[in-house]
Amino acid sequence: MLVGDERLDHLLAEGLRIIQSPSVFSFSLDAVLLARFAYIPYQKGPIIDLCSGNGIIPLLISSRTKAPIIGVEIQERLVDMARRSVAYNDLTTQIEILQYDLRDVVPLLGREKNSFVMCNPPYFALDTTAIKNENEHLRIARHEVHCTLRDCIQVSAKLLKQGGKASFVHRPERLLEIIDIMREYGLEPKRIQFVHPRVEREANTILIEGVKGGKPGIKYLPPIIVQNEDGEYSKQVRELLYGKE
Amino acid sequence: MLVGDERLDHLLAEGLRIIQSPSVFSFSLDAVLLARFAYIPYQKGPIIDLCSGNGIIPLLISSRTKAPIIGVEIQERLVDMARRSVAYNDLTTQIEILQYDLRDVVPLLGREKNSFVMCNPPYFALDTTAIKNENEHLRIARHEVHCTLRDCIQVSAKLLKQGGKASFVHRPERLLEIIDIMREYGLEPKRIQFVHPRVEREANTILIEGVKGGKPGIKYLPPIIVQNEDGEYSKQVRELLYGKE
Repeated sequence: MLVGDERLDHLLAEGLRIIQSPSVFSFSLDAVLLARFAYIPYQKGPIIDLCSGNGIIPLLISSRTKAPIIGVEIQERLVDMARRSVAYNDLTTQIEILQYDLRDVVPLLGREKNSFVMCNPPYFALDTTAIKNENEHLRIARHEVHCTLRDCIQVSAKLLKQGGKASFVHRPERLLEIIDIMREYGLEPKRIQFVHPRVEREANTILIEGVKGGKPGIKYLPPIIVQNEDGEYSKQVRELLYGKE
Repeated sequence: MLVGDERLDHLLAEGLRIIQSPSVFSFSLDAVLLARFAYIPYQKGPIIDLCSGNGIIPLLISSRTKAPIIGVEIQERLVDMARRSVAYNDLTTQIEILQYDLRDVVPLLGREKNSFVMCNPPYFALDTTAIKNENEHLRIARHEVHCTLRDCIQVSAKLLKQGGKASFVHRPERLLEIIDIMREYGLEPKRIQFVHPRVEREANTILIEGVKGGKPGIKYLPPIIVQNEDGEYSKQVRELLYGKE
């Protein structure tokens, strides 16, 4: 069932397993944080996860909802990993992984027909460096090769009906750009959470939720601090990764 | 030396005293946080503090700089308190308190002649409630009676030369508005810090620094957590108020 350098890793808090590969795709803490940040309905869905990678977010949120979950991923190799993980966990009736360019997915999933969209997009613009040493799989997951930040936000906004929610995780240096683009497409920012690697360090990740056609007014949630002073994961993050102690 | 219900309170961390009055003006933690947040040059000045109230910010920062400090305050009663505090602490050669409407102060202090401006403006728009039970002094300090947020930012921007810094403290619900107005007047936001009353609560205060003509790119500083789980001031805040232990 595993291919090449793939591993069958544990999602301890959820009691699930996920197929990963260091050379193709391994999920990051950011996906875990987004899964926790996003509002997850208990029943009504579907919940759509764009840029789904190896299906980490659908798997994580499946333990908190009965709603159908749809992951959209462009890379065939990752779609294959995600589908095998879904099957391994007996979640094929709840989770569907679509191999699709997200820029083409609106007609399929319905314009203004959905209430919940999430996306952990590639963080880096194509003009940045650090691109050369990566293989094609990693390059697509990390850089705006097939979709830009604007694409992700625009598609999310198009999928949502009025009052629907879209959640994103990204880097703080792009926060104002994200807010501007969200507003351009009618997604009003409502909740923002900053993630700091340690309590005395600047934020290196942001989580943001917008509501389609929402009224202006943002709540800045309690910060997430990833590591304690001793360099271990904080209680907050340990609970996300390993479950309540 | 004290008038009416005035008290001579201690600024413990700085070894200074300040005249306060519950019915006229008492400084808030926000002023202390702004004084700590702002970049304070050691020598070259002047440092201009707009909406200076009873002179709390000039007094607080005087212990960290040799630069001249100018406080601008519109209310005669507060200017009088501030000047008596300055005199009591023997700081009349360093600190000058001007009784001035900040909207008229640019010709006096020089357009594009300054490098450091700070402002803890009134937080509330005039149309908000909660205004009726306050006397005139408190109403002017808390509500946009004599100057709006836009006035404060515009005047700060006009006073600054290229590369000069302006720092503000305000409420999170107005952060995006602040950023928009700052950019409109050529003040590029560079540092933002969120203040949370407790670690598990939403931010209720924000600190922001802009640089005149600066390049885009914001750092989100480590959060300030005001109280511990036991409801006492956190170590971070105790040090600001009482000095290092």
